[in-house]
Amino acid sequence: MSKGVTPKSENYSKWYTDVITKAELADYGPVKGTMIIRPYGFQIWENIKNIFDAEFKKTGHTNAYFPLFIPKSFLNKEADHVEGFAKECAIVTHSRLKSNKDGKLIPDPESKLEEEVIVRPTSETIIWSMYKKWIKSHRDLPILINQWANVVRWEMRTRLFLRTSEFLWQEGHTAHSNKDEAVEETLKILNIYRSVIENHMGIPVITGKKSENEKFAGAEDTYTMEAMMGDKKALQAGTSHYLGQNFSKAFDVKFQDTDNTEKYVYATSWGVSTRLIGALIMVHGDDKGLRLPPNIAPIQVVIIPIYKSNDDLEKINQYIDPILKELTSNDIPFYFDNRESMSPGFKFNEWEMKGVPLRLEVGMRDVDKNNIVVARRDDSQKKTYSIQGAATNIIKCLSDIQASLYQQALNFRNKNIFHVNNYTEFKNIISNNGGFLQCGWDGQSKTERLIKQETNATIRCIIKDVNDSNIKCIYSNSPAKYEVIFSKAY
Amino acid sequence: MSKGVTPKSENYSKWYTDVITKAELADYGPVKGTMIIRPYGFQIWENIKNIFDAEFKKTGHTNAYFPLFIPKSFLNKEADHVEGFAKECAIVTHSRLKSNKDGKLIPDPESKLEEEVIVRPTSETIIWSMYKKWIKSHRDLPILINQWANVVRWEMRTRLFLRTSEFLWQEGHTAHSNKDEAVEETLKILNIYRSVIENHMGIPVITGKKSENEKFAGAEDTYTMEAMMGDKKALQAGTSHYLGQNFSKAFDVKFQDTDNTEKYVYATSWGVSTRLIGALIMVHGDDKGLRLPPNIAPIQVVIIPIYKSNDDLEKINQYIDPILKELTSNDIPFYFDNRESMSPGFKFNEWEMKGVPLRLEVGMRDVDKNNIVVARRDDSQKKTYSIQGAATNIIKCLSDIQASLYQQALNFRNKNIFHVNNYTEFKNIISNNGGFLQCGWDGQSKTERLIKQETNATIRCIIKDVNDSNIKCIYSNSPAKYEVIFSKAY
Repeated sequence: MSKGVTPKSENYSKWYTDVITKAELADYGPVKGTMIIRPYGFQIWENIKNIFDAEFKKTGHTNAYFPLFIPKSFLNKEADHVEGFAKECAIVTHSRLKSNKDGKLIPDPESKLEEEVIVRPTSETIIWSMYKKWIKSHRDLPILINQWANVVRWEMRTRLFLRTSEFLWQEGHTAHSNKDEAVEETLKILNIYRSVIENHMGIPVITGKKSENEKFAGAEDTYTMEAMMGDKKALQAGTSHYLGQNFSKAFDVKFQDTDNTEKYVYATSWGVSTRLIGALIMVHGDDKGLRLPPNIAPIQVVIIPIYKSNDDLEKINQYIDPILKELTSNDIPFYFDNRESMSPGFKFNEWEMKGVPLRLEVGMRDVDKNNIVVARRDDSQKKTYSIQGAATNIIKCLSDIQASLYQQALNFRNKNIFHVNNYTEFKNIISNNGGFLQCGWDGQSKTERLIKQETNATIRCIIKDVNDSNIKCIYSNSPAKYEVIFSKAY
Repeated sequence: MSKGVTPKSENYSKWYTDVITKAELADYGPVKGTMIIRPYGFQIWENIKNIFDAEFKKTGHTNAYFPLFIPKSFLNKEADHVEGFAKECAIVTHSRLKSNKDGKLIPDPESKLEEEVIVRPTSETIIWSMYKKWIKSHRDLPILINQWANVVRWEMRTRLFLRTSEFLWQEGHTAHSNKDEAVEETLKILNIYRSVIENHMGIPVITGKKSENEKFAGAEDTYTMEAMMGDKKALQAGTSHYLGQNFSKAFDVKFQDTDNTEKYVYATSWGVSTRLIGALIMVHGDDKGLRLPPNIAPIQVVIIPIYKSNDDLEKINQYIDPILKELTSNDIPFYFDNRESMSPGFKFNEWEMKGVPLRLEVGMRDVDKNNIVVARRDDSQKKTYSIQGAATNIIKCLSDIQASLYQQALNFRNKNIFHVNNYTEFKNIISNNGGFLQCGWDGQSKTERLIKQETNATIRCIIKDVNDSNIKCIYSNSPAKYEVIFSKAY
């Protein structure tokens, strides 16, 4: 625990894994590609989840739960969907184990399933098979359902939180009577995503549409949020899809409209996952470990008493008690770390590794002077507060830290967005510096593919349409159709 | 929605399914044995879950997440465990789909797994494989982890909420340095279970140990809560297991104790599941549908305006507004049902079916008289309140309903517990009336088995040890070792 992590500058990928391991966020599971989210990591996820969940409910969504198992035949129904998703998946073929003559467990051949079932990679197909049953009339619409669930996409090259066979996410699946309402829903959710991720997780994002190559295969339009990680690569932090009538047609879901005609339903789907924790680590972490924005930190304040005798500890307890009471009444989660057999220095390192935003140090000298020492995790600054009004100052300081982590991430990202207009410069920056490259694109998938082949950069999102014929495509030099962000990505 | 359910007395099992379907709690999934928990059912589950989760956290537990997939070999490690659990399960054998020459999707033979993985039926094995990694010293103990997750036990004969291939639950898995602490934990959880189920779900339970035949195969002792359903059968509402050192020995999990010797860790596990919703329906439901205890009802109060013109509705809105504000500020979830195109009668039926504890009716006559009409779901009684102080009376009434539902269930159960001391009477009651039969048992598994064969009744739980040689076993007539409850069960 107390040992440091590999410096970011030395090996970014090793640094990332070290932080996760040493902050006890997660661990590798016994089956290749799987991970365990340990209590500290899971508390962060719960905090993120609760904020999203409240926002979804405020906007009229309700949670439900659909089965883990999808009939294989469903994946044949929406052809694009299969192409995009369903190939690498967990396939259940048997439903019973039996002991063979050596006493080993084997799948009982007699339990072979008539039709294999797939562990959900995402739930569009199973949900739309049910919407077919539930939707008859315009009065049944809209349906605004969200699900918190585990999903599986088989992966061999594990990367904790970023690429694992199983991960946790929420998936919203809504059904509407008309296109406008469905598009509005898609954008409303994108907006909720952005606001939670920026205001609570302190991660600035760029939003926009995905290109044809990069969008969700079953969608008409995919909207994305792209965040810049500490190594200047992009990470897709969440997506919101306008699905048009693709799934309602595949599953034959029609409703009787007010004009008594039958119409296919319009759909959206949208999701964020535990991958956000990966983003959190890579955006805010430093060589001492995690740095957590207070709004989603399991512990916002850690109090470390510095004492030699039990008498001293008792005095410190009494001294600090009113502050702890005030923190409690302000719903600030704190931890009073009076564990014996560990030095204050050890504790400092441990809580820095775990990213606790604020540390209070209280020794006998502070008690005598009516002081308290406060150390910020975001900028490592120490300050001495008077004990009078300390709680108020602590709460103010937490809100400063929340703002400062966002601002630091924003500054870093803005410093690494480059407006480019020739391909040599583009290649130069991509290979020497990295970052987000903003430029014109002719809208051709071929162009996009060639740039990817040559530089490994992909279009992260379309920023805007271009109506100015002076703006050229970075690659083909034809008039640009869109202004886009290119970057290497996770 | 507005059509009634099959009467309980006519066909209990059909009544049960009708209530679930018509109250829109759940639906059947496309893969045999699976179910969908619809939004209204899921809100009930969320309410139950949140209460449990808060209790677990108050007592020092934290949540974590372990993988869905368990290596097949793990199930061989704890032999009893396998016998009890692992035979009927979902076995994943392939990790990729491909299109065959007819364009159909098939499992890609090249993706066949070297070792099959099992979809967790419960997580003891995978969790103890990790505890092996995390536990070195007494300082690492206790570990008090809970997980909210889906689990799978293959089932062909579905019964919504009671028997489905996949269900949702929480599973606690704790590790301790000594037996006393582990036993204390087992009982502490049993107590939390009892208090939530009785005080919030309004379901009285009898707690006690399971017999050898009925206990969890990997446990030393299984403690259970048994509730009586409306058809007088028992339902196991939750279990808390003292696992001794069974799993720590199977997975070789030792710790260095304060005396510097290595010892095997002591364990507990405990769980409640969405099956509780089945209990809720069967304990409180009647021929009009669900009846929900306010503490876990998604909507505690429904307000139905009775009006002819928009002017009237506007007046009712204004009239009722202060009450709604007071309900909001008291965190009472309510729904103001001003949907057009549905008659008040239709709405009454719908909300009765959905078990909303309290209905307010407000028409123009009530506005004129400064009244409000209140209809209780628990006893169908209507009262007229003065609009002054109405919110206070409503809140008081909700708390009465909470108590009354529990009391009704308790009376019903107590009326159907029979103290018996001869086997003829035992068989008579079991086959003609049903209910819980309290009697002596000689402690022999054989006796238990014979009674089960002859009557279909099983030992639900052991109430107490018997030290009085005058008390005889109901079957063998030998001196009884235990006083137990026999019953038919779900």
